[in-house]
Amino acid sequence: MFVDEDNITELAVQRWATAHSPRLGELMTAFVRHLHEFAREVRLTEAEWMAAIEWLTAAGQTCDDKRQELILTSDVLGLSTLVVQLNNRFAPQATPATVLGPFHVDGSPTAPYGFDMSDGIEGIPLFFTGKVTDTEGKPLPGVVLDVWQADADGAYEAQLPEIDEARLRAKYRTREDGTYCIRTIAPRGYAIPMDGPVGDLMRKTDISHFRPAHVHFLIDEPGYRKLTTHLFQEGGQYLESDVVFGTKDALITPFAERPAGAAPDGGTIEVAYLRAEYDFVLQPG
Amino acid sequence: MFVDEDNITELAVQRWATAHSPRLGELMTAFVRHLHEFAREVRLTEAEWMAAIEWLTAAGQTCDDKRQELILTSDVLGLSTLVVQLNNRFAPQATPATVLGPFHVDGSPTAPYGFDMSDGIEGIPLFFTGKVTDTEGKPLPGVVLDVWQADADGAYEAQLPEIDEARLRAKYRTREDGTYCIRTIAPRGYAIPMDGPVGDLMRKTDISHFRPAHVHFLIDEPGYRKLTTHLFQEGGQYLESDVVFGTKDALITPFAERPAGAAPDGGTIEVAYLRAEYDFVLQPG
Ligand SMILES: [Fe+2]
Ligand SMILES: [Fe+2]
Repeated sequence: MFVDEDNITELAVQRWATAHSPRLGELMTAFVRHLHEFAREVRLTEAEWMAAIEWLTAAGQTCDDKRQELILTSDVLGLSTLVVQLNNRFAPQATPATVLGPFHVDGSPTAPYGFDMSDGIEGIPLFFTGKVTDTEGKPLPGVVLDVWQADADGAYEAQLPEIDEARLRAKYRTREDGTYCIRTIAPRGYAIPMDGPVGDLMRKTDISHFRPAHVHFLIDEPGYRKLTTHLFQEGGQYLESDVVFGTKDALITPFAERPAGAAPDGGTIEVAYLRAEYDFVLQPG
Repeated sequence: MFVDEDNITELAVQRWATAHSPRLGELMTAFVRHLHEFAREVRLTEAEWMAAIEWLTAAGQTCDDKRQELILTSDVLGLSTLVVQLNNRFAPQATPATVLGPFHVDGSPTAPYGFDMSDGIEGIPLFFTGKVTDTEGKPLPGVVLDVWQADADGAYEAQLPEIDEARLRAKYRTREDGTYCIRTIAPRGYAIPMDGPVGDLMRKTDISHFRPAHVHFLIDEPGYRKLTTHLFQEGGQYLESDVVFGTKDALITPFAERPAGAAPDGGTIEVAYLRAEYDFVLQPG
Protein backbone atom coordinates (compact mmCIF):
# COMPACT_ATOMS: atom_id res chain seq x y z
CA MET A 1 0.00 0.00 0.00
CA PHE A 2 1.39 3.41 -0.95
CA VAL A 3 0.91 6.66 0.86
CA ASP A 4 -1.60 9.40 0.40
CA GLU A 5 -2.81 12.24 2.59
CA ASP A 6 -5.42 10.01 4.22
CA ASN A 7 -3.35 6.99 5.13
CA ILE A 8 0.09 8.45 5.90
CA THR A 9 -0.63 8.91 9.61
CA GLU A 10 -1.88 5.34 10.06
CA LEU A 11 1.11 3.98 8.13
CA ALA A 12 3.55 5.93 10.27
CA VAL A 13 1.79 4.84 13.46
CA GLN A 14 1.91 1.17 12.37
CA ARG A 15 5.63 1.43 11.70
CA TRP A 16 6.49 2.93 15.07
CA ALA A 17 4.26 0.43 16.84
CA THR A 18 7.00 -2.12 16.02
CA ALA A 19 9.17 -0.65 18.79
CA HIS A 20 10.65 -3.45 20.89
CA SER A 21 9.68 -1.80 24.16
CA PRO A 22 5.91 -1.37 24.59
CA ARG A 23 6.45 1.98 26.29
CA LEU A 24 8.57 3.29 23.42
CA GLY A 25 5.84 2.11 21.04
CA GLU A 26 3.24 3.98 23.09
CA LEU A 27 5.33 7.16 23.16
CA MET A 28 6.25 7.13 19.47
CA THR A 29 2.80 6.27 18.12
CA ALA A 30 1.17 8.94 20.29
CA PHE A 31 3.83 11.45 19.24
CA VAL A 32 3.33 10.66 15.52
CA ARG A 33 -0.45 11.05 15.87
CA HIS A 34 -0.22 14.42 17.63
CA LEU A 35 2.50 15.73 15.33
CA HIS A 36 0.43 14.82 12.26
CA GLU A 37 -2.75 16.25 13.81
CA PHE A 38 -0.91 19.51 14.38
CA ALA A 39 0.35 19.65 10.77
CA ARG A 40 -3.13 18.89 9.40
CA GLU A 41 -4.90 21.34 11.69
CA VAL A 42 -2.72 24.32 10.74
CA ARG A 43 -2.15 23.01 7.20
CA LEU A 44 1.58 23.48 7.67
CA THR A 45 3.24 24.92 4.57
CA GLU A 46 6.52 23.62 3.18
CA ALA A 47 8.23 26.93 4.03
CA GLU A 48 6.94 26.76 7.63
CA TRP A 49 8.08 23.15 7.89
CA MET A 50 11.55 24.15 6.72
CA ALA A 51 11.64 27.12 9.12
CA ALA A 52 10.78 24.74 11.98
CA ILE A 53 13.53 22.31 10.94
CA GLU A 54 16.04 25.16 10.80
CA TRP A 55 14.89 26.55 14.15
CA LEU A 56 15.23 23.18 15.88
CA THR A 57 18.63 22.61 14.30
CA ALA A 58 19.82 25.99 15.55
CA ALA A 59 18.41 25.26 19.01
CA GLY A 60 20.35 21.97 19.19
CA GLN A 61 23.48 23.69 18.01
CA THR A 62 23.13 26.45 20.63
CA CYS A 63 23.50 23.82 23.38
CA ASP A 64 26.83 23.24 25.08
CA ASP A 65 27.97 22.37 28.58
CA LYS A 66 26.80 25.81 29.82
CA ARG A 67 23.57 26.10 27.87
CA GLN A 68 20.52 23.95 27.15
CA GLU A 69 18.31 25.73 24.61
CA LEU A 70 15.89 22.80 24.27
CA ILE A 71 15.11 22.72 27.99
CA LEU A 72 14.54 26.46 27.67
CA THR A 73 12.21 25.75 24.73
CA SER A 74 10.29 23.22 26.80
CA ASP A 75 10.16 25.77 29.65
CA VAL A 76 8.70 28.64 27.61
CA LEU A 77 6.15 26.31 25.96
CA GLY A 78 4.87 25.29 29.41
CA LEU A 79 5.87 21.67 28.75
CA SER A 80 8.39 21.52 31.60
CA THR A 81 5.82 22.71 34.11
CA LEU A 82 3.21 20.29 32.75
CA VAL A 83 5.65 17.37 33.10
CA VAL A 84 6.48 18.47 36.67
CA GLN A 85 2.77 18.57 37.48
CA LEU A 86 2.03 15.19 35.92
CA ASN A 87 4.80 13.54 37.93
CA ASN A 88 4.52 15.33 41.26
CA ARG A 89 0.93 15.06 42.45
CA PHE A 90 1.55 15.73 46.13
CA ALA A 91 -0.82 16.12 49.07
CA PRO A 92 -2.11 19.70 49.46
CA GLN A 93 -0.06 20.29 52.62
CA ALA A 94 3.21 19.14 50.96
CA THR A 95 5.56 21.72 49.42
CA PRO A 96 4.79 21.69 45.69
CA ALA A 97 7.41 20.98 43.05
CA THR A 98 8.37 23.34 40.28
CA VAL A 99 10.75 23.23 37.31
CA LEU A 100 14.37 22.17 37.80
CA GLY A 101 15.70 24.66 35.26
CA PRO A 102 18.91 24.14 33.32
CA PHE A 103 21.34 25.50 35.93
CA HIS A 104 21.59 22.83 38.62
CA VAL A 105 25.19 21.72 39.27
CA ASP A 106 25.83 18.31 40.83
CA GLY A 107 28.12 17.85 43.82
CA SER A 108 27.77 21.16 45.65
CA PRO A 109 29.89 21.33 48.82
CA THR A 110 28.39 20.48 52.18
CA ALA A 111 27.86 23.59 54.27
CA PRO A 112 27.32 23.96 58.02
CA TYR A 113 24.24 25.55 59.63
CA GLY A 114 24.16 29.24 58.73
CA PHE A 115 26.98 29.05 56.15
CA ASP A 116 27.13 32.04 53.81
CA MET A 117 26.99 30.52 50.31
CA SER A 118 27.39 33.96 48.72
CA ASP A 119 31.05 33.98 49.88
CA GLY A 120 31.49 37.73 49.50
CA ILE A 121 29.54 38.22 46.25
CA GLU A 122 27.84 41.60 46.48
CA GLY A 123 24.17 41.77 47.47
CA ILE A 124 21.73 42.21 50.33
CA PRO A 125 22.25 39.45 52.91
CA LEU A 126 19.36 36.97 52.98
CA PHE A 127 18.71 34.18 55.47
CA PHE A 128 16.39 31.25 54.90
CA THR A 129 15.39 29.54 58.11
CA GLY A 130 12.78 26.94 58.97
CA LYS A 131 12.21 23.23 59.30
CA VAL A 132 11.88 20.27 57.04
CA THR A 133 8.96 18.06 58.13
CA ASP A 134 6.81 15.23 56.83
CA THR A 135 3.15 15.81 55.95
CA GLU A 136 2.19 15.14 59.62
CA GLY A 137 4.45 17.98 60.78
CA LYS A 138 7.14 15.69 62.24
CA PRO A 139 10.57 17.43 61.95
CA LEU A 140 13.11 15.48 59.88
CA PRO A 141 16.75 15.55 60.99
CA GLY A 142 19.72 15.16 58.65
CA VAL A 143 17.82 16.11 55.49
CA VAL A 144 20.02 17.62 52.77
CA LEU A 145 18.85 20.84 51.08
CA ASP A 146 20.71 21.35 47.80
CA VAL A 147 20.45 25.12 47.18
CA TRP A 148 21.44 27.23 44.16
CA GLN A 149 20.66 30.66 42.78
CA ALA A 150 21.71 33.38 40.36
CA ASP A 151 23.80 36.40 41.29
CA ALA A 152 22.51 39.97 41.11
CA ASP A 153 23.14 39.95 37.34
CA GLY A 154 20.94 36.86 36.89
CA ALA A 155 23.97 34.64 36.20
CA TYR A 156 24.19 31.12 37.59
CA GLU A 157 27.58 29.50 38.14
CA ALA A 158 26.68 27.06 35.34
CA GLN A 159 26.58 30.02 32.92
CA LEU A 160 29.96 31.44 33.87
CA PRO A 161 33.48 30.34 32.92
CA GLU A 162 34.66 27.48 35.10
CA ILE A 163 35.85 28.48 38.56
CA ASP A 164 37.51 26.50 41.34
CA GLU A 165 34.98 27.07 44.09
CA ALA A 166 31.23 26.61 44.20
CA ARG A 167 29.46 29.91 43.54
CA LEU A 168 26.06 30.59 45.11
CA ARG A 169 25.36 26.94 45.69
CA ALA A 170 25.75 24.61 48.68
CA LYS A 171 24.22 21.61 50.44
CA TYR A 172 22.79 22.28 53.91
CA ARG A 173 21.62 19.65 56.34
CA THR A 174 18.82 19.91 58.90
CA ARG A 175 19.75 19.64 62.59
CA GLU A 176 18.30 17.11 65.06
CA ASP A 177 15.17 19.27 65.45
CA GLY A 178 14.67 19.48 61.65
CA THR A 179 15.79 23.12 61.41
CA TYR A 180 18.06 24.60 58.79
CA CYS A 181 19.70 28.00 58.26
CA ILE A 182 21.03 29.26 54.92
CA ARG A 183 22.82 32.54 54.39
CA THR A 184 23.04 34.00 50.90
CA ILE A 185 22.26 37.23 49.05
CA ALA A 186 18.87 38.35 47.78
CA PRO A 187 18.16 36.93 44.29
CA ARG A 188 16.84 39.21 41.56
CA GLY A 189 14.40 38.60 38.75
CA TYR A 190 16.29 37.79 35.58
CA ALA A 191 15.69 37.44 31.85
CA ILE A 192 16.10 34.05 30.23
CA PRO A 193 18.94 33.94 27.66
CA MET A 194 17.59 35.93 24.71
CA ASP A 195 20.54 35.63 22.32
CA GLY A 196 19.53 32.28 20.81
CA PRO A 197 16.64 30.71 18.88
CA VAL A 198 14.28 30.94 21.88
CA GLY A 199 14.96 34.68 22.12
CA ASP A 200 14.41 35.10 18.38
CA LEU A 201 11.01 33.46 18.72
CA MET A 202 10.03 35.28 21.92
CA ARG A 203 10.75 38.67 20.33
CA LYS A 204 8.00 37.90 17.81
CA THR A 205 5.50 37.89 20.70
CA ASP A 206 4.60 40.10 23.66
CA ILE A 207 5.69 37.42 26.15
CA SER A 208 7.78 38.76 29.06
CA HIS A 209 11.34 37.45 29.11
CA PHE A 210 11.64 37.47 32.89
CA ARG A 211 11.54 35.15 35.84
CA PRO A 212 10.64 36.49 39.29
CA ALA A 213 13.36 36.48 42.01
CA HIS A 214 13.81 32.95 43.40
CA VAL A 215 16.20 30.49 44.97
CA HIS A 216 16.27 26.82 43.89
CA PHE A 217 16.00 23.89 46.31
CA LEU A 218 16.35 20.18 45.71
CA ILE A 219 15.60 17.77 48.57
CA ASP A 220 16.06 14.08 47.80
CA GLU A 221 15.44 12.34 51.12
CA PRO A 222 15.03 8.54 51.24
CA GLY A 223 11.44 7.56 52.06
CA TYR A 224 10.04 10.77 50.52
CA ARG A 225 9.31 11.96 47.00
CA LYS A 226 12.17 13.94 45.55
CA LEU A 227 11.28 17.63 45.83
CA THR A 228 12.60 20.03 43.17
CA THR A 229 11.32 23.49 43.90
CA HIS A 230 11.96 27.23 44.27
CA LEU A 231 11.13 29.84 46.86
CA PHE A 232 9.99 33.16 45.40
CA GLN A 233 10.15 36.59 47.00
CA GLU A 234 6.69 37.84 47.93
CA GLY A 235 5.87 41.14 46.23
CA GLY A 236 8.64 40.70 43.66
CA GLN A 237 8.31 41.66 40.01
CA TYR A 238 7.19 39.12 37.37
CA LEU A 239 5.46 36.75 39.80
CA GLU A 240 2.35 36.84 37.61
CA SER A 241 4.22 36.52 34.33
CA ASP A 242 7.02 34.03 35.06
CA VAL A 243 8.23 33.13 31.56
CA VAL A 244 8.69 29.47 32.51
CA PHE A 245 5.35 29.14 34.38
CA GLY A 246 7.14 28.14 37.59
CA THR A 247 5.40 30.33 40.18
CA LYS A 248 3.01 28.77 42.69
CA ASP A 249 1.20 30.44 45.59
CA ALA A 250 2.61 28.01 48.15
CA LEU A 251 6.18 28.86 47.09
CA ILE A 252 5.91 32.63 47.58
CA THR A 253 7.31 33.76 50.88
CA PRO A 254 8.00 37.15 52.47
CA PHE A 255 11.64 38.32 52.57
CA ALA A 256 11.25 40.37 55.78
CA GLU A 257 13.56 43.35 56.39
CA ARG A 258 15.60 43.07 59.58
CA PRO A 259 17.99 45.61 61.15
CA ALA A 260 21.68 44.93 61.79
CA GLY A 261 22.34 43.11 65.07
CA ALA A 262 21.25 39.60 65.98
CA ALA A 263 21.44 37.23 63.01
CA PRO A 264 19.25 34.15 62.50
CA ASP A 265 22.29 31.86 62.69
CA GLY A 266 22.77 32.86 66.35
CA GLY A 267 25.61 35.29 65.60
CA THR A 268 25.49 39.00 64.78
CA ILE A 269 25.43 40.89 61.49
CA GLU A 270 26.62 44.43 60.90
CA VAL A 271 24.20 45.39 58.14
CA ALA A 272 20.46 45.21 57.63
CA TYR A 273 19.35 41.97 56.05
CA LEU A 274 16.37 39.98 54.77
CA ARG A 275 14.91 36.91 56.41
CA ALA A 276 12.63 34.31 54.83
CA GLU A 277 11.06 31.71 57.10
CA TYR A 278 9.86 28.61 55.30
CA ASP A 279 9.05 25.06 56.36
CA PHE A 280 9.50 22.45 53.65
CA VAL A 281 6.96 19.62 53.88
CA LEU A 282 7.99 16.38 52.15
CA GLN A 283 5.54 14.03 50.48
CA PRO A 284 6.01 10.43 51.67
CA GLY A 285 6.57 7.92 48.91
CA MET B 1 -3.23 33.29 38.52
CA PHE B 2 -0.63 30.60 39.14
CA VAL B 3 -0.21 27.32 37.36
CA ASP B 4 -1.54 23.90 38.10
CA GLU B 5 -1.99 20.77 36.03
CA ASP B 6 -5.39 21.91 34.81
CA ASN B 7 -4.63 25.46 33.68
CA ILE B 8 -1.02 25.23 32.43
CA THR B 9 -2.05 24.47 28.83
CA GLU B 10 -4.49 27.38 28.65
CA LEU B 11 -1.92 29.74 30.18
CA ALA B 12 0.72 28.69 27.68
CA VAL B 13 -1.73 29.02 24.79
CA GLN B 14 -2.72 32.53 25.93
CA ARG B 15 0.92 33.58 26.09
CA TRP B 16 1.77 32.38 22.59
CA ALA B 17 -1.41 33.91 21.22
CA THR B 18 0.37 37.28 21.71
CA ALA B 19 2.52 36.56 18.64
CA HIS B 20 2.64 39.66 16.43
CA SER B 21 1.85 37.70 13.28
CA PRO B 22 -1.56 36.00 13.37
CA ARG B 23 -0.15 33.00 11.51
CA LEU B 24 2.69 32.56 14.03
CA GLY B 25 0.07 32.79 16.79
CA GLU B 26 -1.99 30.11 15.07
CA LEU B 27 1.04 27.83 14.64
CA MET B 28 2.39 28.25 18.17
CA THR B 29 -0.92 27.91 19.99
CA ALA B 30 -1.83 24.78 18.00
CA PHE B 31 1.64 23.38 18.63
CA VAL B 32 1.43 24.04 22.38
CA ARG B 33 -1.99 22.37 22.55
CA HIS B 34 -0.87 19.24 20.70
CA LEU B 35 2.43 18.99 22.59
CA HIS B 36 0.62 19.21 25.92
CA GLU B 37 -2.05 16.74 24.79
CA PHE B 38 0.70 14.29 23.88
CA ALA B 39 2.40 14.68 27.28
CA ARG B 40 -0.90 14.24 29.12
CA GLU B 41 -2.02 11.28 27.05
CA VAL B 42 1.16 9.26 27.62
CA ARG B 43 1.74 10.77 31.09
CA LEU B 44 5.28 11.60 30.10
CA THR B 45 7.76 10.91 32.91
CA GLU B 46 10.54 13.28 33.87
CA ALA B 47 13.16 10.74 32.71
CA GLU B 48 11.40 10.38 29.32
CA TRP B 49 11.20 14.15 28.99
CA MET B 50 14.93 14.44 29.67
CA ALA B 51 15.68 11.62 27.19
CA ALA B 52 13.67 13.47 24.54
CA ILE B 53 15.54 16.73 25.25
CA GLU B 54 18.88 14.94 24.98
CA TRP B 55 17.83 13.14 21.78
CA LEU B 56 16.74 16.40 20.11
CA THR B 57 19.93 18.14 21.22
CA ALA B 58 22.03 15.35 19.74
CA ALA B 59 19.98 15.46 16.52
CA GLY B 60 20.63 19.20 16.16
CA GLN B 61 24.31 18.71 16.86
CA THR B 62 24.55 15.93 14.24
CA CYS B 63 23.61 18.44 11.53
CA ASP B 64 26.27 20.10 9.41
CA ASP B 65 26.54 21.23 5.82
CA LYS B 66 26.47 17.57 4.66
CA ARG B 67 23.86 16.22 7.03
CA GLN B 68 20.38 17.20 8.21
CA GLU B 69 19.30 14.83 10.98
CA LEU B 70 16.10 16.76 11.72
CA ILE B 71 14.84 16.47 8.14
CA LEU B 72 15.63 12.77 8.45
CA THR B 73 13.63 12.71 11.69
CA SER B 74 10.69 14.37 9.96
CA ASP B 75 11.05 11.86 7.09
CA VAL B 76 10.95 8.72 9.24
CA LEU B 77 8.01 10.06 11.29
CA GLY B 78 6.01 10.50 8.07
CA LEU B 79 5.77 14.26 8.67
CA SER B 80 7.69 15.20 5.51
CA THR B 81 5.34 13.13 3.34
CA LEU B 82 2.28 14.54 5.11
CA VAL B 83 3.51 18.11 4.50
CA VAL B 84 4.16 17.28 0.83
CA GLN B 85 0.63 15.89 0.52
CA LEU B 86 -0.99 18.85 2.26
CA ASN B 87 0.74 21.30 -0.05
CA ASN B 88 0.63 19.46 -3.37
CA ARG B 89 -2.95 18.46 -4.04
CA PHE B 90 -2.63 17.99 -7.80
CA ALA B 91 -5.12 16.75 -10.42
CA PRO B 92 -5.13 12.94 -10.73
CA GLN B 93 -3.45 13.03 -14.14
CA ALA B 94 -0.58 15.25 -12.90
CA THR B 95 2.69 13.67 -11.77
CA PRO B 96 2.47 13.49 -7.96
CA ALA B 97 5.02 15.11 -5.69
CA THR B 98 7.10 13.30 -3.13
CA VAL B 99 9.69 14.26 -0.51
CA LEU B 100 12.62 16.50 -1.44
CA GLY B 101 15.05 14.68 0.83
CA PRO B 102 18.14 16.30 2.32
CA PHE B 103 20.51 15.82 -0.63
CA HIS B 104 19.47 18.34 -3.26
CA VAL B 105 22.33 20.61 -4.35
CA ASP B 106 21.54 24.00 -5.90
CA GLY B 107 23.10 25.15 -9.11
CA SER B 108 23.65 21.89 -10.98
CA PRO B 109 25.26 22.39 -14.39
CA THR B 110 23.14 22.61 -17.51
CA ALA B 111 23.42 19.45 -19.61
CA PRO B 112 22.53 18.85 -23.25
CA TYR B 113 19.99 16.27 -24.46
CA GLY B 114 21.29 12.78 -23.67
CA PHE B 115 24.19 13.99 -21.51
CA ASP B 116 25.68 11.28 -19.27
CA MET B 117 25.51 12.72 -15.77
CA SER B 118 27.29 9.65 -14.33
CA ASP B 119 30.52 10.89 -15.97
CA GLY B 120 32.29 7.52 -15.78
CA ILE B 121 31.08 6.46 -12.31
CA GLU B 122 30.62 2.69 -12.40
CA GLY B 123 27.14 1.28 -12.89
CA ILE B 124 24.63 -0.06 -15.39
CA PRO B 125 23.82 2.68 -17.94
CA LEU B 126 20.28 3.97 -17.56
CA PHE B 127 18.36 6.33 -19.86
CA PHE B 128 15.29 8.30 -18.89
CA THR B 129 13.32 9.51 -21.89
CA GLY B 130 9.91 11.04 -22.31
CA LYS B 131 8.07 14.34 -22.47
CA VAL B 132 7.05 17.06 -20.10
CA THR B 133 3.44 18.11 -20.73
CA ASP B 134 0.64 20.06 -19.08
CA THR B 135 -2.43 18.26 -17.72
CA GLU B 136 -4.06 18.51 -21.20
CA GLY B 137 -1.14 16.59 -22.73
CA LYS B 138 0.38 19.63 -24.46
CA PRO B 139 4.19 19.18 -24.69
CA LEU B 140 6.15 21.92 -22.93
CA PRO B 141 9.42 23.09 -24.55
CA GLY B 142 12.37 24.53 -22.59
CA VAL B 143 11.36 23.02 -19.26
CA VAL B 144 14.28 22.41 -16.89
CA LEU B 145 14.53 19.02 -15.16
CA ASP B 146 16.89 19.24 -12.19
CA VAL B 147 18.01 15.63 -11.62
CA TRP B 148 20.07 14.04 -8.82
CA GLN B 149 20.69 10.59 -7.44
CA ALA B 150 22.95 8.43 -5.27
CA ASP B 151 25.79 6.30 -6.55
CA ALA B 152 25.86 2.50 -6.31
CA ASP B 153 26.95 2.81 -2.66
CA GLY B 154 23.92 4.96 -1.83
CA ALA B 155 26.04 8.10 -1.49
CA TYR B 156 24.87 11.47 -2.80
CA GLU B 157 27.36 14.13 -3.75
CA ALA B 158 26.07 16.18 -0.81
CA GLN B 159 27.32 13.44 1.55
CA LEU B 160 30.84 13.23 0.10
CA PRO B 161 33.87 15.49 0.59
CA GLU B 162 33.68 18.53 -1.65
CA ILE B 163 34.66 17.93 -5.26
CA ASP B 164 35.16 20.29 -8.18
CA GLU B 165 32.62 18.84 -10.57
CA ALA B 166 28.94 17.98 -10.16
CA ARG B 167 28.52 14.29 -9.36
CA LEU B 168 25.38 12.44 -10.48
CA ARG B 169 23.40 15.63 -10.86
CA ALA B 170 22.57 17.88 -13.80
CA LYS B 171 19.89 20.15 -15.27
CA TYR B 172 18.32 18.96 -18.53
CA ARG B 173 15.98 21.00 -20.72
CA THR B 174 13.12 19.72 -22.87
CA ARG B 175 13.39 20.23 -26.64
CA GLU B 176 10.86 22.05 -28.81
CA ASP B 177 8.61 18.94 -28.83
CA GLY B 178 8.75 18.66 -25.01
CA THR B 179 11.07 15.63 -25.02
CA TYR B 180 14.02 15.06 -22.77
CA CYS B 181 16.79 12.43 -22.58
CA ILE B 182 18.91 11.78 -19.48
CA ARG B 183 21.76 9.32 -19.29
CA THR B 184 22.95 8.09 -15.90
CA ILE B 185 23.58 4.82 -14.04
CA ALA B 186 20.98 2.64 -12.36
CA PRO B 187 20.32 3.79 -8.78
CA ARG B 188 20.24 1.26 -5.96
CA GLY B 189 18.15 1.04 -2.81
CA TYR B 190 20.06 2.54 0.09
CA ALA B 191 19.89 2.76 3.87
CA ILE B 192 19.34 6.13 5.51
CA PRO B 193 22.29 7.29 7.67
CA MET B 194 22.10 5.03 10.72
CA ASP B 195 25.07 6.38 12.69
CA GLY B 196 23.20 9.21 14.41
CA PRO B 197 20.25 9.72 16.76
CA VAL B 198 17.71 8.63 14.10
CA GLY B 199 19.60 5.34 13.68
CA ASP B 200 19.75 4.85 17.45
CA LEU B 201 15.98 5.22 17.62
CA MET B 202 15.26 3.08 14.54
CA ARG B 203 17.30 0.19 15.93
CA LYS B 204 14.84 0.02 18.82
CA THR B 205 12.12 -0.89 16.31
CA ASP B 206 11.63 -3.34 13.43
CA ILE B 207 11.38 -0.53 10.88
CA SER B 208 13.37 -1.14 7.68
CA HIS B 209 16.23 1.31 7.18
CA PHE B 210 15.99 1.31 3.40
CA ARG B 211 14.70 3.37 0.54
CA PRO B 212 13.87 1.74 -2.80
CA ALA B 213 16.00 2.60 -5.85
CA HIS B 214 15.04 6.05 -7.21
CA VAL B 215 16.20 9.15 -9.01
CA HIS B 216 15.14 12.64 -7.86
CA PHE B 217 13.58 15.27 -10.12
CA LEU B 218 12.72 18.88 -9.49
CA ILE B 219 10.79 20.83 -12.14
CA ASP B 220 10.07 24.47 -11.34
CA GLU B 221 8.43 25.84 -14.50
CA PRO B 222 6.74 29.27 -14.46
CA GLY B 223 2.96 28.91 -14.76
CA TYR B 224 2.95 25.47 -13.14
CA ARG B 225 3.16 24.16 -9.60
CA LYS B 226 6.69 23.31 -8.61
CA LEU B 227 7.09 19.54 -8.87
CA THR B 228 9.51 17.80 -6.48
CA THR B 229 9.40 14.09 -7.12
CA HIS B 230 11.23 10.78 -7.65
CA LEU B 231 11.01 7.99 -10.19
CA PHE B 232 11.27 4.50 -8.68
CA GLN B 233 12.41 1.32 -10.38
CA GLU B 234 9.50 -1.08 -10.87
CA GLY B 235 10.08 -4.42 -9.15
CA GLY B 236 12.85 -2.99 -6.96
CA GLN B 237 13.37 -3.93 -3.34
CA TYR B 238 11.83 -1.87 -0.49
CA LEU B 239 9.07 -0.30 -2.61
CA GLU B 240 6.50 -1.40 -0.02
CA SER B 241 8.58 -0.40 3.00
CA ASP B 242 10.23 2.89 1.96
CA VAL B 243 11.53 4.23 5.28
CA VAL B 244 10.58 7.81 4.37
CA PHE B 245 7.10 6.95 3.00
CA GLY B 246 7.98 8.40 -0.40
CA THR B 247 6.76 5.71 -2.80
CA LYS B 248 3.67 6.30 -4.94
CA ASP B 249 2.16 4.06 -7.60
CA ALA B 250 2.29 6.74 -10.28
CA LEU B 251 6.04 7.20 -9.73
CA ILE B 252 7.03 3.55 -10.27
CA THR B 253 8.26 2.91 -13.76
CA PRO B 254 9.86 -0.07 -15.52
CA PHE B 255 13.62 0.09 -16.13
CA ALA B 256 13.51 -2.04 -19.31
CA GLU B 257 16.62 -4.03 -20.31
CA ARG B 258 17.99 -3.15 -23.73
CA PRO B 259 20.86 -4.72 -25.71
CA ALA B 260 23.97 -2.86 -26.79
CA GLY B 261 23.52 -0.98 -30.06
CA ALA B 262 21.18 1.94 -30.74
CA ALA B 263 20.96 4.27 -27.75
CA PRO B 264 17.91 6.43 -26.86
CA ASP B 265 19.94 9.61 -27.40
CA GLY B 266 20.25 8.80 -31.11
CA GLY B 267 23.81 7.49 -30.83
CA THR B 268 25.09 3.99 -30.10
CA ILE B 269 26.12 2.27 -26.89
CA GLU B 270 28.53 -0.64 -26.59
CA VAL B 271 26.97 -2.31 -23.55
CA ALA B 272 23.51 -3.46 -22.54
CA TYR B 273 21.57 -0.76 -20.72
CA LEU B 274 18.29 0.11 -19.00
CA ARG B 275 15.64 2.42 -20.33
CA ALA B 276 12.84 4.15 -18.40
CA GLU B 277 10.18 6.02 -20.36
CA TYR B 278 8.24 8.54 -18.35
CA ASP B 279 6.13 11.57 -19.18
CA PHE B 280 6.04 14.25 -16.51
CA VAL B 281 2.67 16.02 -16.29
CA LEU B 282 2.75 19.45 -14.64
CA GLN B 283 -0.11 20.87 -12.59
CA PRO B 284 -1.06 24.39 -13.73
CA GLY B 285 -1.06 27.05 -11.03
FE1 LIG C 1 16.39 29.97 38.37
FE1 LIG D 1 17.11 9.83 -2.48
